[in-house]
Amino acid sequence: MPTAMNAAVFVEPGRIVLDEKPIPEVGPSDALIRITTTTICGTDVHILKGEYPVAKGLTVGHEPVGIIEKLGRNVEGYREGQRVIAGAICPSGYSNASLDGLHAQDGQSAAHGLKPIGGWRFGNTIDGSQAEYLLVPDAMANLAPVPDALTDEQVLMCPDIMSTGFAGAESGNIKIGDTVAVFAQGPIGLCATTGAKLRGATTIIAVETVPERIEMAKRFGADLVIDFGESDPVDAIMEATNGRGVDVAIEALGLQSTFESCLRVLKPGGTLSSLGVYSEDLTIPLAAFHAGLGDHKIVTSLCPGGKERMRRLMNVIATGRIDCEPLITHRFSLEQIVEAYELFANQRDGVLKIAITP
Amino acid sequence: MPTAMNAAVFVEPGRIVLDEKPIPEVGPSDALIRITTTTICGTDVHILKGEYPVAKGLTVGHEPVGIIEKLGRNVEGYREGQRVIAGAICPSGYSNASLDGLHAQDGQSAAHGLKPIGGWRFGNTIDGSQAEYLLVPDAMANLAPVPDALTDEQVLMCPDIMSTGFAGAESGNIKIGDTVAVFAQGPIGLCATTGAKLRGATTIIAVETVPERIEMAKRFGADLVIDFGESDPVDAIMEATNGRGVDVAIEALGLQSTFESCLRVLKPGGTLSSLGVYSEDLTIPLAAFHAGLGDHKIVTSLCPGGKERMRRLMNVIATGRIDCEPLITHRFSLEQIVEAYELFANQRDGVLKIAITP
Amino acid sequence: MPTAMNAAVFVEPGRIVLDEKPIPEVGPSDALIRITTTTICGTDVHILKGEYPVAKGLTVGHEPVGIIEKLGRNVEGYREGQRVIAGAICPSGYSNASLDGLHAQDGQSAAHGLKPIGGWRFGNTIDGSQAEYLLVPDAMANLAPVPDALTDEQVLMCPDIMSTGFAGAESGNIKIGDTVAVFAQGPIGLCATTGAKLRGATTIIAVETVPERIEMAKRFGADLVIDFGESDPVDAIMEATNGRGVDVAIEALGLQSTFESCLRVLKPGGTLSSLGVYSEDLTIPLAAFHAGLGDHKIVTSLCPGGKERMRRLMNVIATGRIDCEPLITHRFSLEQIVEAYELFANQRDGVLKIAITP
Amino acid sequence: MPTAMNAAVFVEPGRIVLDEKPIPEVGPSDALIRITTTTICGTDVHILKGEYPVAKGLTVGHEPVGIIEKLGRNVEGYREGQRVIAGAICPSGYSNASLDGLHAQDGQSAAHGLKPIGGWRFGNTIDGSQAEYLLVPDAMANLAPVPDALTDEQVLMCPDIMSTGFAGAESGNIKIGDTVAVFAQGPIGLCATTGAKLRGATTIIAVETVPERIEMAKRFGADLVIDFGESDPVDAIMEATNGRGVDVAIEALGLQSTFESCLRVLKPGGTLSSLGVYSEDLTIPLAAFHAGLGDHKIVTSLCPGGKERMRRLMNVIATGRIDCEPLITHRFSLEQIVEAYELFANQRDGVLKIAITP
Repeated sequence: MPTAMNAAVFVEPGRIVLDEKPIPEVGPSDALIRITTTTICGTDVHILKGEYPVAKGLTVGHEPVGIIEKLGRNVEGYREGQRVIAGAICPSGYSNASLDGLHAQDGQSAAHGLKPIGGWRFGNTIDGSQAEYLLVPDAMANLAPVPDALTDEQVLMCPDIMSTGFAGAESGNIKIGDTVAVFAQGPIGLCATTGAKLRGATTIIAVETVPERIEMAKRFGADLVIDFGESDPVDAIMEATNGRGVDVAIEALGLQSTFESCLRVLKPGGTLSSLGVYSEDLTIPLAAFHAGLGDHKIVTSLCPGGKERMRRLMNVIATGRIDCEPLITHRFSLEQIVEAYELFANQRDGVLKIAITP
Repeated sequence: MPTAMNAAVFVEPGRIVLDEKPIPEVGPSDALIRITTTTICGTDVHILKGEYPVAKGLTVGHEPVGIIEKLGRNVEGYREGQRVIAGAICPSGYSNASLDGLHAQDGQSAAHGLKPIGGWRFGNTIDGSQAEYLLVPDAMANLAPVPDALTDEQVLMCPDIMSTGFAGAESGNIKIGDTVAVFAQGPIGLCATTGAKLRGATTIIAVETVPERIEMAKRFGADLVIDFGESDPVDAIMEATNGRGVDVAIEALGLQSTFESCLRVLKPGGTLSSLGVYSEDLTIPLAAFHAGLGDHKIVTSLCPGGKERMRRLMNVIATGRIDCEPLITHRFSLEQIVEAYELFANQRDGVLKIAITP
Repeated sequence: MPTAMNAAVFVEPGRIVLDEKPIPEVGPSDALIRITTTTICGTDVHILKGEYPVAKGLTVGHEPVGIIEKLGRNVEGYREGQRVIAGAICPSGYSNASLDGLHAQDGQSAAHGLKPIGGWRFGNTIDGSQAEYLLVPDAMANLAPVPDALTDEQVLMCPDIMSTGFAGAESGNIKIGDTVAVFAQGPIGLCATTGAKLRGATTIIAVETVPERIEMAKRFGADLVIDFGESDPVDAIMEATNGRGVDVAIEALGLQSTFESCLRVLKPGGTLSSLGVYSEDLTIPLAAFHAGLGDHKIVTSLCPGGKERMRRLMNVIATGRIDCEPLITHRFSLEQIVEAYELFANQRDGVLKIAITP
Repeated sequence: MPTAMNAAVFVEPGRIVLDEKPIPEVGPSDALIRITTTTICGTDVHILKGEYPVAKGLTVGHEPVGIIEKLGRNVEGYREGQRVIAGAICPSGYSNASLDGLHAQDGQSAAHGLKPIGGWRFGNTIDGSQAEYLLVPDAMANLAPVPDALTDEQVLMCPDIMSTGFAGAESGNIKIGDTVAVFAQGPIGLCATTGAKLRGATTIIAVETVPERIEMAKRFGADLVIDFGESDPVDAIMEATNGRGVDVAIEALGLQSTFESCLRVLKPGGTLSSLGVYSEDLTIPLAAFHAGLGDHKIVTSLCPGGKERMRRLMNVIATGRIDCEPLITHRFSLEQIVEAYELFANQRDGVLKIAITP
């Protein structure tokens, strides 16, 4: 086995490059995965731009599909050569946060077991998946075997995009017959649209302006797509709902304007389910909030992880409930990672997601 | 029976006066109540000051205890002479909102049955309880008989203060063993403190600075009271929780500063349960919100109403779980209503709540 | 307007006949509906057979589609001539049960507002829908206008079959990625199958033996149908799930054998969601129940009613999430009601549901 | 350090004896605890009698308080000499069951990660706590440090009795103002009574006949105790609730008679929360179950475990919400274990719980 590998490394704001790094040592609870397919997330672009700070020299990426190369000596229930995925969020299972169900806020080393966003480790606090090899910590909580019938590309959206998008619908506590608005139809918004449908929403209103995404939104379950380049989405949604508003509004972009629009289209008693990564303070307009008396809820969700979540999401795909492959609009080798980032960060060529193969 | 009565009437911002009005006609679904005890709410002070607009000439007040004087011809299951209360919020029961459990957002006449804050009618959209008589709409959904063993003053906090304060704890979804902070210990904050205890919170941290209210907070269930005049409450709470933060923070004042402090003391995954009536846009600080990735929830609750809620709250009192009478610090007759408002609006004499008797 | 009408009347066990009855008087909160389409339910067959006792002379049926003929004088928000449905369950909205969300257990006249199965009034405690006219009590809580775009037959399953079937999935608290078994694929089981899919179940295993129903089960969302005439369904389900068992098992028949099979296929921590109407004591086998230590749940659901539920269900149809018309296998006039019962009670001709038109 | 220790060992039905066993080896994820205090549970008596089968030679007991003697080489976040407890249920944290929140049904080695009652290991599938030393598996998920201010005896009920009893109230989903019945006031029933109070039940009706337990029930929060030796508890409860029945009935004994009585006193829509360990099939009486149409729920709970649960329960004690020490009616040394079993199994001397000290 070789001792060095290629990896996409954060150098400084504006620069992620392909570099050579040693293949990591495998600790007793770890597993080493040989990456077969991975992808780039919008969050990685935030890292590239320096908007979300990570350590210099860190390998980026948090969406791994691969083959078990080596198991730590305490890891049981798996075999080398097995094809697996791991979620973007790697809960320990043993922290107080994990034991309380807050897997994404897992402080493995904190005295009280809680740390904001602590469950997100790949490409954030430890080396990530845009590399030839990936070390998966707490492997027994995180490795999810891929059914033979599913290809790498079919399960590539499970680690983050599907898990996050579905969480927007789940946290919104959608009921059968609900009307739901989803603001923005990038990969996560599209999965939120499908998630809303999977939970029983019957009128799903997507908001988007890019023509390819508008088309894709219909394919992913939207009953109506509002082109915000053509009409004010708040007015259009209120009109489409006869002034009733929506039961749940899902924010899948990360801007004040969409956050605020979500509130403005909510029925009294409705829920704003936020998936966006914000870069500024947010404002809650008094009128849209009914002065705090509207029985509104605002809920945020970080991507749920862990092997049980992955098992469930792969089942969603295996039974044909959703086909995420159309999201993969481009394919690059790991050697072309810089080019891939350039394309993705600038949203050129109608890109949605890029499959990267080492 | 007389045809005219005294009532506290909103004339213009700054002026609520005692005036004579006709005793209302009783419609088929209504009940006419002879008020025996009522009180003034903080919201009434917002009305007095013109901060919350109501129609000129409206009778103010939404916390009635009284005797059934006359029942509408379709009202069954009650008898004249019976002592009852009605909640500040009067759901219709038949609107889409009510049937969906959103009693406080009840649009009785709206096409879709939803209206922001629509369940609050007394002293808001119809004449209220600071009068000799009160007309209760949708009487069969709203009249709750008072057990003989309970006095008027014992149940006077049920229609609003207890119901709202408890809702802060209920909407926060408190679990056994939770740590909860309650910002402000006015009447509603005090009931939120008790509500948190009733739901199983084990470390309840109250924030207040008025000495009488600090004392009262301990009596109502606070394990620790932080005097925000002496130390920064965010720092003090983070220290008291060893940096963990709280599971649930209840906002019971209605200011940006307390709203923001609630977010700053929340553990990742925690819930801000908001009871305040705000008068300005609110800001969510990016850091306290972990950029939207902290699995936080912000929930707001308008006072739950209806006769079943009242029945339950009177049971809380009847079985000694809470004694709200200490909240009644002053007693006035209805004739002294202007004086009562003057005292209450200026928070003089350590006032918490004033019992008003026509 | 005429003063007499035809109605299907329960005479004695074994006899439901068409008879002439006076058209009912309209009380202040009622609405009189001219029935345009109705149907027969399995429960009506229990009534016919005398297994579920009702008063002699009662008009049977609880699934009305019709036109508002006359509104009580206190009923607002509707107009005569409007096409409406009402749920099989007619909550009052004002009882303690209704205000607590327990609409189906509504004791309109009970001291404490609770009565077992009290929300089911049509064809149970008051005259039902298999007639030319139907009196709907508490009309403002129960009349749901039918969108123009939907035909009578499209909405005919909303009052009971869809509402009940979906409730099996809702009460089971299905999560995305769940495996669900549905025992029996009669009309309610089929709707439970669709309901499970609408809530995000990804592996839905239906159990049935009638060939037409097996076919229909696939159309309604089953991923796998087990023919219990060919293999033991418990063994087959355990094998299909690799010994894991199901997250939720829905009982849609009402027999000890299916109730027990549900328990036997449940994973530890799973939920048995029961929709059946049982006619004998039930036995919980000790081993299947893991001696009470398996974190199992057994939940029962009576058909949810009220106009908000009906609005939601019609939206499910209007947006194409489910097409219930294939359930209507036969059509009869009201005059042929005896013949219709004969066919339906004996499950002849592959009957699923019969549309009855006065 | 010595290599052998004393332990209470199951020999055959009817015989648990003190025997010498080797002190266990410490695996990489384990911790070795020197037991300072433990106790005997009703379940241990089932084991003694052969009603619940365990392997011959197994050390019995699942309620440990002790000092960390040795940590496995991968265990971080603890230090030797630290005083800790571990729950009766030891979740792995990493199984699919654990990651899904089903900690007590944890199949550490099962293909699908689920195993009935699999989280209960001490004194069931691995050696237990009635010994001088105890090996705690998956130590990082299970060791909960005891605050210095709390004595061994104060926290002795956390591992099982409190956790189980509270779970009865939690699973019943008690709301503020609920009426709750608790059948049997042994140690678990008493904790269920307190749990109901901690969740906001306001009328708590305990059923018991042993005078000491009747007294204790009042101390633990019962508003009313019905002596079933003097009156039929179903009749008495229906009378005490004016025919309404209870919102939640908690079964804390494990017999058909109490299970059935719980159903008979439930309001429609109410929940039977079962804590009992049953030894026979159970019967659900048709009438009490309203033929399956009563919107009833039957939920079972196995003791929740894991260090976060233990942390919360110790906080309940530390803040004075409950004082469990009165449950300790007798104290024995480990050498007297046979005598202790004899007393406990025969319920002599008003015994509730026995503290055992090696």
